Amino acid sequence: MRIGIIGGTGDIGEGMSRRLSPHHDVVLGSREAEKAVATSTCTVDLLKERGVSCSCTGVCNQDAISGVDVIILAVPFTHLESTVKGLTGFEGKIVVTPVNPMEKRDFFVFAPPPEGSAALLLKKLLPGARVVTAFNTIAANRWKAIDEDIDVAVPVCSDDDEAKKIVIGIANGVSKIRAYDAGPLAVSAMVESLTPLLLNIARYNKMKDVGIRFV
Amino acid sequence: MRIGIIGGTGDIGEGMSRRLSPHHDVVLGSREAEKAVATSTCTVDLLKERGVSCSCTGVCNQDAISGVDVIILAVPFTHLESTVKGLTGFEGKIVVTPVNPMEKRDFFVFAPPPEGSAALLLKKLLPGARVVTAFNTIAANRWKAIDEDIDVAVPVCSDDDEAKKIVIGIANGVSKIRAYDAGPLAVSAMVESLTPLLLNIARYNKMKDVGIRFV
Repeated sequence: MRIGIIGGTGDIGEGMSRRLSPHHDVVLGSREAEKAVATSTCTVDLLKERGVSCSCTGVCNQDAISGVDVIILAVPFTHLESTVKGLTGFEGKIVVTPVNPMEKRDFFVFAPPPEGSAALLLKKLLPGARVVTAFNTIAANRWKAIDEDIDVAVPVCSDDDEAKKIVIGIANGVSKIRAYDAGPLAVSAMVESLTPLLLNIARYNKMKDVGIRFV
Repeated sequence: MRIGIIGGTGDIGEGMSRRLSPHHDVVLGSREAEKAVATSTCTVDLLKERGVSCSCTGVCNQDAISGVDVIILAVPFTHLESTVKGLTGFEGKIVVTPVNPMEKRDFFVFAPPPEGSAALLLKKLLPGARVVTAFNTIAANRWKAIDEDIDVAVPVCSDDDEAKKIVIGIANGVSKIRAYDAGPLAVSAMVESLTPLLLNIARYNKMKDVGIRFV
């Protein structure tokens, strides 16, 4: 598949490009195309060193939408609305949100928008898109550490069953990830709130990059 | 320790008595003392068959509060408020809530009270108690199936560090449970919302009694 990553030069986006580009055509987007080109070159070189061939190019965010099948919004929640409002061409596309609305006080708390979750806000902003919640709980370091397995669960929500199946397939193709159907978009809040929980678990138990498994 | 289980004749309470009574003095409470006696006898017999000695007695709910160190409220959310309002003697006691406010539509959704979580409601109802959130995500069948290990994580929240440590110790003493400090009571919603998430994961992926691990 052709997968566009909006915010592809952030830690999560860059890590995703390392894991997805051996299996898919990854188009990394950034506000500045030059930065995306630099990151994509870095991904290609890193994989080449390991004898892994891949497909990863860098473009501006808008160009990471045209011509791709799946768009991943690898942006922090605070930039989600402004980012998608500044771009066009989401209609009919699968749009994946790994976005977790949260606030940091002495600890992390889930802080959803009035719609109830980042996913439901996104559905309102992009009524023509096939919104899928996925990859919320994988820490940037785990995406980036390509010499280590990612052996965690990924709960996936969507109101579009076909889009959900496609994203579950993409997730199951990454390292040892096991993707699970977690239901419709209406329950995305329960998935997005896992991330502040895991950040607190890491902090209070002196752990790092904590993930989740269902057993 | 002496542990009182309010609602001790429900599936969760009965299962807890099987797992806790080999290590602690368990006082099972019920609205009808006779039912609690019957359940406690059943627990004692079941463990005796396996050569395990235990301490488990049955009393009315009120008597499961007096003289115990830790009280577990093994009641559904819909009965939480009426149950604690009908009882006295919680002051200064460790009160554990495994309670998850949720609604069943076509799927399960987290449905917290205005306070934000069952734990925060409980803290309002019992200002003198040392409220601890724990054991939220362990299915009744797992508690009850004493010939099988419970190999899952238990996130624990409290504003009382000593109470939290005591409950973490109790949890770590059960089968292969690993208890984690998940932060203050303010983040209990993120723990309580795990249960409707896990119920949906079970339903949509044809699994049973799904638990969680942190990795």
